[in-house]
Amino acid sequence: MIIQTLREKQPLIHHITNYVSVNDCANATIAIGASAAMADFYEEQADFAKISSALVLNTGTINQLIANSMLKAIKEYAALNKSIVLDPVALGVSKARDQINYELLGLKGICIIKANASEMASVIGLDGKARGVDNTFIIHDEFLEKAREYAKKTKRILAVTGKVDYIISEDKIAKIYNGSSMAAKITGAGCMCGSLCGAFAGILEDKFEASLYALLSFGIASELAQENSNGSGSFRINLIDALSNLNDEKIKNKAQYEFI
Amino acid sequence: MIIQTLREKQPLIHHITNYVSVNDCANATIAIGASAAMADFYEEQADFAKISSALVLNTGTINQLIANSMLKAIKEYAALNKSIVLDPVALGVSKARDQINYELLGLKGICIIKANASEMASVIGLDGKARGVDNTFIIHDEFLEKAREYAKKTKRILAVTGKVDYIISEDKIAKIYNGSSMAAKITGAGCMCGSLCGAFAGILEDKFEASLYALLSFGIASELAQENSNGSGSFRINLIDALSNLNDEKIKNKAQYEFI
Amino acid sequence: MIIQTLREKQPLIHHITNYVSVNDCANATIAIGASAAMADFYEEQADFAKISSALVLNTGTINQLIANSMLKAIKEYAALNKSIVLDPVALGVSKARDQINYELLGLKGICIIKANASEMASVIGLDGKARGVDNTFIIHDEFLEKAREYAKKTKRILAVTGKVDYIISEDKIAKIYNGSSMAAKITGAGCMCGSLCGAFAGILEDKFEASLYALLSFGIASELAQENSNGSGSFRINLIDALSNLNDEKIKNKAQYEFI
Repeated sequence: MIIQTLREKQPLIHHITNYVSVNDCANATIAIGASAAMADFYEEQADFAKISSALVLNTGTINQLIANSMLKAIKEYAALNKSIVLDPVALGVSKARDQINYELLGLKGICIIKANASEMASVIGLDGKARGVDNTFIIHDEFLEKAREYAKKTKRILAVTGKVDYIISEDKIAKIYNGSSMAAKITGAGCMCGSLCGAFAGILEDKFEASLYALLSFGIASELAQENSNGSGSFRINLIDALSNLNDEKIKNKAQYEFI
Repeated sequence: MIIQTLREKQPLIHHITNYVSVNDCANATIAIGASAAMADFYEEQADFAKISSALVLNTGTINQLIANSMLKAIKEYAALNKSIVLDPVALGVSKARDQINYELLGLKGICIIKANASEMASVIGLDGKARGVDNTFIIHDEFLEKAREYAKKTKRILAVTGKVDYIISEDKIAKIYNGSSMAAKITGAGCMCGSLCGAFAGILEDKFEASLYALLSFGIASELAQENSNGSGSFRINLIDALSNLNDEKIKNKAQYEFI
Repeated sequence: MIIQTLREKQPLIHHITNYVSVNDCANATIAIGASAAMADFYEEQADFAKISSALVLNTGTINQLIANSMLKAIKEYAALNKSIVLDPVALGVSKARDQINYELLGLKGICIIKANASEMASVIGLDGKARGVDNTFIIHDEFLEKAREYAKKTKRILAVTGKVDYIISEDKIAKIYNGSSMAAKITGAGCMCGSLCGAFAGILEDKFEASLYALLSFGIASELAQENSNGSGSFRINLIDALSNLNDEKIKNKAQYEFI
């Protein structure tokens, strides 16, 4: 009854995120049943850490000022032992972006990394062949092995999005088959997945489970959204509708995943 | 014939607002019949004050740089005796945010404060029990008394949003019953109310009347939007549709409010 | 077969743009068949120039920091001989904005200027009578003459949007009659036209042709979007749908333009 619980507890999910998909992230967070606060001001990070259940960091439109707020926020949330999700958008694309992301990744406290396969390859030390925000990396055995090593070393959960999604921890890997190809035709799909990871991490101790529910929710909502879509504009609206109408029964009936 | 007049005069409503709901605010402003300009650059404030009919300030994603532009803008608009609406988003949530908001509130020129009950409680000196951007405050008699005192002292109109909206001046209080519970399920609903306050304040001398029309318009549009909504995504789109189709007859027929 | 080619090549279109319509610009770019990256961090401009096919600059919410990134980006893209589109939003409205825009315009490398008639008048040395972001200028013979002179002197293409669109080069002028009056009722319509100019410029050597396809695509998509719209909210969604469903046959059948 995870969705029902989420809607009853309505955890506050604090984001420091990009200005491209920030509205979609806030609406997706609310639609799934949590509350959303978007606040990147350095001076506010300590106060937001006190009242929020989880922090979602997204480097889509990163710059040094925002990076400073993220570094401060990580320290504040880590000190309170609260969940931190990082979405290292477009990691591998520029030196400046890489430098900031690796500095964030070097800090303690991040419990879930949500990334597409290209970005995650760069996280775990492979060449992600990144081009902008697009996912061009094909997951292979070496990737999974390296990912599991990284998860073991860092105690982090890796939530990898793509045609098939992977949730990777040090001791298990889930493959998720839900989803729609239309999600790749809108901006912010991956960002919303990060928001959902934050929402579930805000109420679940087990961050593997939180990541699994997040990507299942997004995948199932995408399938439902596609049914009545006339193009990528209406798909994006239907996706928020589907998230707002999602419930535990739909997840139980439609979830398609396996452990490998 | 206020809506018709608004569409004929098409006042330019200048916003310094947050990057989460800025697109919705611009579209709501245009939908009701005004023009929207979003410009937070310090160096431009004097020039925008000359050509705009009203200024809307919203502290959703405030930082010191934006705050400086707001302080400058207030002085420019006040010097020209033009309307200023303040939406002190998430007031009460952090020290840094409170400091900026109380500095803005301390300046002359703001004629309408648009806030949810939690935020307004902090404005008038009560404990708003704020948690992020959520409204958790229940309006009681002490609140109304203090609000009226504040309105009397500052000559400001207080537009308080919630399940029931209140418009409070030094000598009268209106209660508005229009609205939809779905407005609480999208980000930016309150922000759009602030934009509408700006739009009506841009053409009406009486700022109580302007606030009343703004919240009636939003409430009635919300009711109309809810009718054909399949979730929070389509509600948000229908809301802009409903604002763009609103007219004086609909307001006359559907408005539900009383003076108390 | 230009749309088909665009979707096969999927050029990466890098934007430094405003935070009001940035989401719509990204979604319009993807819908027409290109990829979108929004990145304004100064330190990233050289790296993004290497991987992108075109740069779109939009001064809607300009400030000095963003302007510095734009100046840097122009130099990087110009050095690599890649296409640069400038949308000088609200040129003529403030001194600070004018100063930044004229500095951008003074650099080599910009190949397409996308602007409404008010803004373009200011570009070519006429009084644009600008008021915020609204288009209030009526195109006349002197405008066309001056525009052609400017195009000849600078080797730039001028893409002028309005009820009727004009594409102006040193040796030809196209008038485009496609479009919907509803495009003026949403924020960001002009910005999306700039994004489409970038998308087509990313694959076409001839920047006149690129501008022509961009404004035809937007105009035709607007007409299709209007058919099923219930207001400005659904128009904006239908517009992205229509762009995502656009193909070469629709353009061939519906394009209405002439050379004058």
